[in-house]
Amino acid sequence: MRIALKLEYDGSRYAGWQYQSHSPSVQEAVERALAFVAAAPVRVVAAGRTDAGVHAWEQIVHFDTEAVRPERAWVQGTNTRLADDIRVLWARPVPCDFHAQRQALARWYRYRICNRPVAPALGRTQLSWCHRPLDEGKMQQAAERLLGEHDFSSFRGPYCQSKSPYRRVYLLEVSRCGDEVAIDIVANAFLHNMVRNIAGVLMAVGSGKRPVDWVSEVLAARDRRAGGVTAPPHGLYFAGIWYPQKFGLPRQPIFARLPQDIRRVEAYD
Amino acid sequence: MRIALKLEYDGSRYAGWQYQSHSPSVQEAVERALAFVAAAPVRVVAAGRTDAGVHAWEQIVHFDTEAVRPERAWVQGTNTRLADDIRVLWARPVPCDFHAQRQALARWYRYRICNRPVAPALGRTQLSWCHRPLDEGKMQQAAERLLGEHDFSSFRGPYCQSKSPYRRVYLLEVSRCGDEVAIDIVANAFLHNMVRNIAGVLMAVGSGKRPVDWVSEVLAARDRRAGGVTAPPHGLYFAGIWYPQKFGLPRQPIFARLPQDIRRVEAYD
Repeated sequence: MRIALKLEYDGSRYAGWQYQSHSPSVQEAVERALAFVAAAPVRVVAAGRTDAGVHAWEQIVHFDTEAVRPERAWVQGTNTRLADDIRVLWARPVPCDFHAQRQALARWYRYRICNRPVAPALGRTQLSWCHRPLDEGKMQQAAERLLGEHDFSSFRGPYCQSKSPYRRVYLLEVSRCGDEVAIDIVANAFLHNMVRNIAGVLMAVGSGKRPVDWVSEVLAARDRRAGGVTAPPHGLYFAGIWYPQKFGLPRQPIFARLPQDIRRVEAYD
Repeated sequence: MRIALKLEYDGSRYAGWQYQSHSPSVQEAVERALAFVAAAPVRVVAAGRTDAGVHAWEQIVHFDTEAVRPERAWVQGTNTRLADDIRVLWARPVPCDFHAQRQALARWYRYRICNRPVAPALGRTQLSWCHRPLDEGKMQQAAERLLGEHDFSSFRGPYCQSKSPYRRVYLLEVSRCGDEVAIDIVANAFLHNMVRNIAGVLMAVGSGKRPVDWVSEVLAARDRRAGGVTAPPHGLYFAGIWYPQKFGLPRQPIFARLPQDIRRVEAYD
């Protein structure tokens, strides 16, 4: 039987999602807790990997098991075996053609920046910080240069394993609430470090270091050396994943704003 | 010369605001950092004390010093000597009749509750948690029973040192944003544990354990034993203090909703 889970986690204490032999990973913690509930080894597949320090409001995983448990056991039983910085929010049986990574139609990330002269004392592991005033209007203009399908090589981290540098950005919005500037980005998939590299470029525009047009130049260069700094991980949140309706999984409201006939792209890698 | 400072802090690591001989306090950390900048001992007076685990978005303190420093030194110099969970946001010279505690016209606290079946993995030291669904409409009805000047003995902690149990509540609002329920309360001053005890009572009403009328009974009893549980500290934020305009300090927008002719009450204790 295949089960899908929704996870929330604080990435501060982890070397990232993916299993690593010498560092604590979210994947290892989740697999260990699920193995206890299943009374058998469990391997999970995630919608996307997150780097060290990156958080998740919504990470979806699936796993196969012969253990028959009520949904409550997969949620509450697993939570009792997890540290308090990882939580299972729901569990659902899914058909065997569900795949947390390959069936995703779109993914949503949010990048959060505390924008004021003094660094945040509250939320210092939950927010990035920029002491220069950010012009969110200019950041929004710059963001619009990145909408659509492009070769995002200039925003691609050095360890990216994807065969293709093409991704389609459906939505890229910059908003401010008091001292906090948020960047919401929805795409069919992301290259490694793509959101943090986009955030770095938008912050350079917002702080006046670079003009809006520079973003188009960076994109056209298809060369990481043309890009900006990689924004720090602790401002980044994996915020939601959209799957085809036939799987019946809860969907974040932001995905209702995308074209409803979009199809998933055959896995780029 | 008298200087006023605005502080923000994450109370998680501290035994509270007030100096304690055997536990780390925010006051001790701030006084030590200021003493370094002043090159002399500094004693600070705060607008209000916060308990262990309670946070501050805005805590105002004042101190007297013979050291002549630019405002930037009191901010940036002090911040370099503080752990990253305490930050000075601004410093201003104030007249000698300014007193951070006694001149306050009103104080604002917010109590934040994550309201969903599963505890929060993100913000678990920044939010309280209630797994039962809270009816924020009922909580608001109950809250209105507490508006005005009352004997708040039923909401007073056992270690409260105030001579008078009377306080005047100007504003008490319950709001929901997704899974988060927030209680905003503005009063001329607060008894020890008063906000957390009010939050405990409102949560009992919101979860259906008690009817709205029960709040009036608790208030009328003037007896702590008639009240509810004390809500946990880590959901509580000291959010702002309003001083007479003559001191020229920045004022949180929420205070614009109070009668503008209110006078401070001579210190209750």
